[in-house]
Amino acid sequence: MKINIGIVGYGNLGKSCERSVLSNARFNLVAIFSRRTVTSKFNTVIEPYENCVNYVGKIDIMLLCGGSKSDLEIQTPSVLSLFDCINTFDTHSKILSEYNRLDVLAKNSNHRLIMSCGWDPGIFSVVRAMFEAVSYEKPVTFWGKGISLGHSDAIRRVPGVIDGVQFTVPSKVAMMMAGHGKQVQENNLHTRECYVVAKESDQKQVEEDIKNIPNYFLGQKTNVHFVSNETVSRLKQKLSHKGEVISVYKTIHGSKCKMNFSVSMESNPDFTACIMMAYINAILNLKEKNASGAFTCLEIPVSDLFYGKSKEEIIKKFC
Amino acid sequence: MKINIGIVGYGNLGKSCERSVLSNARFNLVAIFSRRTVTSKFNTVIEPYENCVNYVGKIDIMLLCGGSKSDLEIQTPSVLSLFDCINTFDTHSKILSEYNRLDVLAKNSNHRLIMSCGWDPGIFSVVRAMFEAVSYEKPVTFWGKGISLGHSDAIRRVPGVIDGVQFTVPSKVAMMMAGHGKQVQENNLHTRECYVVAKESDQKQVEEDIKNIPNYFLGQKTNVHFVSNETVSRLKQKLSHKGEVISVYKTIHGSKCKMNFSVSMESNPDFTACIMMAYINAILNLKEKNASGAFTCLEIPVSDLFYGKSKEEIIKKFC
Repeated sequence: MKINIGIVGYGNLGKSCERSVLSNARFNLVAIFSRRTVTSKFNTVIEPYENCVNYVGKIDIMLLCGGSKSDLEIQTPSVLSLFDCINTFDTHSKILSEYNRLDVLAKNSNHRLIMSCGWDPGIFSVVRAMFEAVSYEKPVTFWGKGISLGHSDAIRRVPGVIDGVQFTVPSKVAMMMAGHGKQVQENNLHTRECYVVAKESDQKQVEEDIKNIPNYFLGQKTNVHFVSNETVSRLKQKLSHKGEVISVYKTIHGSKCKMNFSVSMESNPDFTACIMMAYINAILNLKEKNASGAFTCLEIPVSDLFYGKSKEEIIKKFC
Repeated sequence: MKINIGIVGYGNLGKSCERSVLSNARFNLVAIFSRRTVTSKFNTVIEPYENCVNYVGKIDIMLLCGGSKSDLEIQTPSVLSLFDCINTFDTHSKILSEYNRLDVLAKNSNHRLIMSCGWDPGIFSVVRAMFEAVSYEKPVTFWGKGISLGHSDAIRRVPGVIDGVQFTVPSKVAMMMAGHGKQVQENNLHTRECYVVAKESDQKQVEEDIKNIPNYFLGQKTNVHFVSNETVSRLKQKLSHKGEVISVYKTIHGSKCKMNFSVSMESNPDFTACIMMAYINAILNLKEKNASGAFTCLEIPVSDLFYGKSKEEIIKKFC
């Protein structure tokens, strides 16, 4: 029997999920829910967001593809009260409070949520935990070159900014140092390249304001480039991204060990959709065990990323 | 309360485990069990192997540090009937049958076994499963440059071979091709460099026999070097190793994604010991959940590699 999937949100990630679901014979894409008037070139049923309540019993798992900034904190609890869900919530500082709140909700309605399910947070979280468990030391994470949605949002909240986008660029020197096991200060890992549209008379103040945003730019190497509206619009289309987790440590015997995990992708939403597809299996396995609640990728063993395969098949294949 | 640890086997891995356990304040090293007459420079209690039965109730977890070739298949079932255990069994073709046999034994005696717990099999198994779940494609694994114990054993079983050791060397061309998502035949991934001691009159036959050992050398690029006893003895001391798992694939949208996991280490036994230390926590967590049986790393979520830390602490730290 096919797994019935719904998608909430029809931006880049929603579109990537749509094609990923459609191309997998195990899944049936029932509907996409959007607050905007949109159409699908694959003729997928598009419903207003508030209609998802009518699909209880017809959809097994909802893929929440809204943004972390304003959508997911509102949509996740309401959709989770009706369906099993996967979201990609990536505001690192809020993940724990969201987890606590949603775990209760999920348990009360007997549903399952895999939250913060992408590459970071997500599989990078898994890798950081593995590296620290083995090495007893905190690994270093590099991102980029690629757009940071959170930092771009922070720029756009600055008075006088008409539009803006931020590229995170890892420092080559810091990467080399980390690769040799040398300590690098958090603030020196990346350069923040900001492409901003602002009136010429505002630019001096805007640059100063951006560089002083705490938690985002303050104390970090930040370059502000004033460019045209067209340039920012074009840069926003860049979907490629990269990331790397590095752990270099010495064992108690003095021998050096190095672990390195890296990803690179031409399209961040496409890769994120692939990860969400894998964790659909985790939801199915949790349901089979009568488990409910919120889960991050940290609590899911990789054997649960396959459904309908025996433990024996999985061991034979991967061990 | 400290976790009481025992070690079975006092070769390279046993020695690495000894220092790792001694250097961690959470653990108490109770005794090492060996079939040979050995002494510890750390004054650890050394007992004859058969005395481990006297330590029931005094040791919580046994680290089985014998070889996969002849020790672990015999020692694991007998020690597992008395204690929770971790082993590094790495004969890939036998892991599933061992798992099935030991799972029953562990359940009957209410014990827990983490088996095949090293870097490969072990954390590489976890990574291969993760990569295939996300990409729907089989990743490629490279090993080396480093000694393969299995291939070295196979060489030493050839008539006329006095001693020998085999270094697995990954093909640079194959690595480059895999890194670009090009298919490479299994047989072309590595070169097998064999350093062999044999009488001059035997060498021609020995070389032919080695190159024709099925599953090990037949069909693979194999170089046989005849060297002195001293050279083989010296080469056998080389403990450094490397490995890499690569997945390059195209999403259904045509965008390219790349995932790469690599490890390198100056001492294979030291690094393996670090991984075993991490999975001690998995045993403690399984026991707390009243679970028994055999487990590979595939069934253990990374959140279980920490003990005495709340789910909240772990999420906050790694997500």
